[in-house]
Amino acid sequence: MHIDHKTRANAIRALTMDAVQKANSGHPGAPMGMADIAEVLWLQFLKHNPANPSFSNRDRFVLSNGHGSMLLYSLLHLTGYQVSIEDLKSFRQLHSKTPGHPELGYTPGVETTTGPLGAGIANAVGMAIAEKTLAAQFNRPDYPVVDHFTYCFLGDGCLMEGVSHEACSLAGTLGLGKLIAFWDDNGISIDGHVEGWFTDDTPARFHAYGWQVIQVDGHNPAQIANAIQQAQAETARPTLICCKTMIGFGSPNKSGSHDCHGSPLGDSEIAKAREFLHWPYVPFDIPAEIYAAWDCKTKGAALEHQWTALFAAYQAEYPELAAEYQRRVIDKKLPANFEAATQSFIETCQNQQQDMASRKASQLCIAHFAALLPEVLGGSADLAGSNLTLWSGSKGLSKEDSSGNYIYYGVREFGMASIMNGITAHGGFRCYGATFLMFMEYARNAVRMSALMKLPTIYVFTHDSIGQGEDGPTHQPIEQLTNLRTTPNLITWRPADLTETAVAWKTALTTTTSPSALVFSRQNLRQFQRNSEQIRLISKGGYILKDCGAAPDIVLVATGSELQLACDTADKLSAAGKKVNVVSMPSTTLFDQQSEFYRDSVLPEQAKIVAIEAAHPDFWYKYVGKKGLIIGISSFGESAPGPALLDYFGFNPDVIAARILA
Amino acid sequence: MHIDHKTRANAIRALTMDAVQKANSGHPGAPMGMADIAEVLWLQFLKHNPANPSFSNRDRFVLSNGHGSMLLYSLLHLTGYQVSIEDLKSFRQLHSKTPGHPELGYTPGVETTTGPLGAGIANAVGMAIAEKTLAAQFNRPDYPVVDHFTYCFLGDGCLMEGVSHEACSLAGTLGLGKLIAFWDDNGISIDGHVEGWFTDDTPARFHAYGWQVIQVDGHNPAQIANAIQQAQAETARPTLICCKTMIGFGSPNKSGSHDCHGSPLGDSEIAKAREFLHWPYVPFDIPAEIYAAWDCKTKGAALEHQWTALFAAYQAEYPELAAEYQRRVIDKKLPANFEAATQSFIETCQNQQQDMASRKASQLCIAHFAALLPEVLGGSADLAGSNLTLWSGSKGLSKEDSSGNYIYYGVREFGMASIMNGITAHGGFRCYGATFLMFMEYARNAVRMSALMKLPTIYVFTHDSIGQGEDGPTHQPIEQLTNLRTTPNLITWRPADLTETAVAWKTALTTTTSPSALVFSRQNLRQFQRNSEQIRLISKGGYILKDCGAAPDIVLVATGSELQLACDTADKLSAAGKKVNVVSMPSTTLFDQQSEFYRDSVLPEQAKIVAIEAAHPDFWYKYVGKKGLIIGISSFGESAPGPALLDYFGFNPDVIAARILA
Repeated sequence: MHIDHKTRANAIRALTMDAVQKANSGHPGAPMGMADIAEVLWLQFLKHNPANPSFSNRDRFVLSNGHGSMLLYSLLHLTGYQVSIEDLKSFRQLHSKTPGHPELGYTPGVETTTGPLGAGIANAVGMAIAEKTLAAQFNRPDYPVVDHFTYCFLGDGCLMEGVSHEACSLAGTLGLGKLIAFWDDNGISIDGHVEGWFTDDTPARFHAYGWQVIQVDGHNPAQIANAIQQAQAETARPTLICCKTMIGFGSPNKSGSHDCHGSPLGDSEIAKAREFLHWPYVPFDIPAEIYAAWDCKTKGAALEHQWTALFAAYQAEYPELAAEYQRRVIDKKLPANFEAATQSFIETCQNQQQDMASRKASQLCIAHFAALLPEVLGGSADLAGSNLTLWSGSKGLSKEDSSGNYIYYGVREFGMASIMNGITAHGGFRCYGATFLMFMEYARNAVRMSALMKLPTIYVFTHDSIGQGEDGPTHQPIEQLTNLRTTPNLITWRPADLTETAVAWKTALTTTTSPSALVFSRQNLRQFQRNSEQIRLISKGGYILKDCGAAPDIVLVATGSELQLACDTADKLSAAGKKVNVVSMPSTTLFDQQSEFYRDSVLPEQAKIVAIEAAHPDFWYKYVGKKGLIIGISSFGESAPGPALLDYFGFNPDVIAARILA
Repeated sequence: MHIDHKTRANAIRALTMDAVQKANSGHPGAPMGMADIAEVLWLQFLKHNPANPSFSNRDRFVLSNGHGSMLLYSLLHLTGYQVSIEDLKSFRQLHSKTPGHPELGYTPGVETTTGPLGAGIANAVGMAIAEKTLAAQFNRPDYPVVDHFTYCFLGDGCLMEGVSHEACSLAGTLGLGKLIAFWDDNGISIDGHVEGWFTDDTPARFHAYGWQVIQVDGHNPAQIANAIQQAQAETARPTLICCKTMIGFGSPNKSGSHDCHGSPLGDSEIAKAREFLHWPYVPFDIPAEIYAAWDCKTKGAALEHQWTALFAAYQAEYPELAAEYQRRVIDKKLPANFEAATQSFIETCQNQQQDMASRKASQLCIAHFAALLPEVLGGSADLAGSNLTLWSGSKGLSKEDSSGNYIYYGVREFGMASIMNGITAHGGFRCYGATFLMFMEYARNAVRMSALMKLPTIYVFTHDSIGQGEDGPTHQPIEQLTNLRTTPNLITWRPADLTETAVAWKTALTTTTSPSALVFSRQNLRQFQRNSEQIRLISKGGYILKDCGAAPDIVLVATGSELQLACDTADKLSAAGKKVNVVSMPSTTLFDQQSEFYRDSVLPEQAKIVAIEAAHPDFWYKYVGKKGLIIGISSFGESAPGPALLDYFGFNPDVIAARILA
């Protein structure tokens, strides 16, 4: 039996048709259209070891058109990953290894979760940045311990999405020569032939970004292989290989149309496709010879073995660098001195007793932690001077020198967040990236994707309320805190002063399976007194800052910039004879994870709970009860100096005390 | 006194420096850099009438780099709008006409709210679509009643943002020949010189979109005027005029650097700039001759008069068309038969008693309402077949024929929403645009901008829960409903069946100052029985669907697809001897606006309230109380068939009844 390119590619097509049909749901078009490209890339070029999907120097492969997940699952199955034929038969079933879209953590060999269009190519840009920067930091003459390509498949949808513009533009600027993307140019999107809504000259667009662009017939293996070689040879520019393909290739009646994009082909059409493709085997049956032709286990083991030998020699010559590589990239651990240095830093913060904006407090924390952690890779979406994300040790990445630790992302919030996800998924770095809290919205779906993928990316969101002042309602968050707090697996912090900021930063850096959103003020905030027990309790997310020493009549709960207001209000209420506690609640996420006993001790049932936050009130009913009092803002802000605005919206201790007493 | 171009332009520069200095906050760089361009455009080309900012055939002007608001305020003041020198002195003060960023509704002559970068150019694309489509619908030989340009200024930030890609790509495809954009190519963004993060060949990029691109010296009035003429002459393609400028032109020590981007220049530098510009006048003083040279009131009145005469003749020849123009564009009213036709439609819906997915119900409503309302302009971000946004009368817009009523937006959610805002701000249309509820997040900031601008755009968000099934957690909304419901001035609906869907659509179309988010299921839903009083109460946002006829022990509140589950659960609880009411709450937004008496009658204090919604639970504490029971989902979803998922996450009447009884 002669197993040629076509036969191997048809194995992908057959598995795709069969799995989608069995699930009665899914997208056969893209896998069948891109099977030839995938066959060439995965068998002739991709450096990977199916037995060890976490081999650190593997090439990265991202399927940005994630709805074509059966392409990836077929490849993983055929090349020898722990994805069985039974797993393929469970496509799109509960808790299978083969969910509808590729999900990081569900399937060995899946590098990132894709499906939201454009996210994958932006993740791939992040992976290529990670590779280039890690290489600049670790490689030494004759020791290319970090040396791999990042490959990405993408479709028309990815190219239409704005995030592809943001990420690919920056990829060009940074000269990511080892990023190679393949555009599935099939002329079809869900609504039909794209001419009515997508007429970009895509090669010209990518030339404009500074990419190399190559155009090939996506069903011609020799052209594809040549293009990949040419792409690998170009080291200063990323490459886009434009592959003319026919969607659903192999389906005689549905290929080339959107009918095969997102629905099973149907048994009768599948039978016809089997004939067309000369594929005589029954569903889910792959002959042993074809498996053998696809098997990458031996080659993969040799590849990793070769790298292990290289690394051993590197270790002998550069023991400290090798140990650091081991720590950052393989073990993913913090340095041994981290905990001690951090505890003493938090105490220093508490002792400083200096008023400052929490964005400024954040900058002091960045300076402290980034000096301890060379894996910290920071950045901002063109707001370094406002977000306060630069510190004395910051060094920007550039096309020529990528050994630094800071990315000037430009005005690209969504791109930034998606790129951070890619860098984090790659490994070797802890990323932070900043913008105004309002423009979290531009990056919103990528923030969610960090949480879904359990990636510990760190978001720095400053200018967190109407307190930011004159920029007005377009720049003043109202509902954004609620949006963050209700995102599963996202840890949201809104610290009130330097000490809480330090604990927030520490927690964000020590957390390994959740992203963190650190929310900071533009305006100056008071530094509060705390005893050591209170400092310890900050990490519980909420704690009693001011204890009246008896069962309180009233508990004022506040976060961030409103904590000082709560304290001032408490003074007024105390003067009026009330027993008042003040609770600081920098992280509702963490507070909700505490025991009911602890939560009730902080917010006792018999007290009147009043929440104070210059943001949308509804979230706080959870803590104050149905008829509780919430001092918040349910309208949009206004343009005026911050203090005038806070006063106008009732954030004034006299007004609040009067409302409580009424 | 000879008033030349430079002097007129310097009036903008002086007012900008002075207002920013007085406010001690703001962005002088862009207005000073673009003053020469603005002077040419506004005095030689812009067709507008300062005395009537709502003259329907005026050219539209959008400042996409909205932080340069003093440019626009200066222009409005100088040309004769109701923006006084006192207003300029109140720049960035509470409730002034001159907020930090241009805000629709605050300042006569401001066409759209800008500040979030990229939003303005996307709005401008929408305005140009509106003009072209309105012209195709209304103009007749010799009667170009709709005939104006849309001009847009934009900066590097707008070009870096992904939404500029989405909108400008579609503008090219649709051949918006009357859209003319001016790029302030000053090489500076907030972080400094852009070379480190923005190296696109922008002219090539826009060529790739099918635009005409012209490059000029942005301080040379003759070149600018020639370019505008060339842009106006090109009718089949939008034009980008790339203007090389110096940011902060006129400031001897700060121009050309980011120091003048976002901070006042300071008194001493302003004094030097006055010398440099030969501008001897004291702050806020503009000599009468310079005012005279800028005054556009006479020219504007003549322009409008000319149009009024044209319209009168048109009215004589085409009375029905003219009446329709009057209704849609000028009076912005629904047709006289709307209310009656709608009431009978809602009754028909109730009587149909047909189970269907609410997305299908939405499609039936679209078909009904769009047939009544030629101003309805629909669309979807490449999900027409999934969102069910097409009806028998749908006709797509194309480059060649823009007389239709449907936009194939492509995979461009943010672009779609921003374009809808532009179309709606332009007038003459009621827009709906659709995507999956999850990908609302891509469009998120534009949805917020609809609400902030009080534009009644209609968002159709389908596939609204884990019930959508196999696509998995990347496609399954959890926290998105809360995000919509906490957005000020956004009316969110999650109807349970065809009748509620019809009321939601009707309300969305009759509302004039709020956008609506209509949230629909993918899966089939039961049609409920209602009496006429219950039908009437739907518009209150929440009402008793199933009344046990006594004071209830338990009230089950549900929305959308979970209403059938609540009814089934109620049956089980009744069988167990409980007195149970079921409340349908299709719109918490509207329910919250009802009297406390009404709300308490629906959710009585003494009953145990249980909320059931396949979404994040926290929002519901507001209704159930601190220790209330909420059947929701606080984790991400999974990939599996919808029914399996609902069962896995506990959305099963037996499970819920047991939880309530426990």
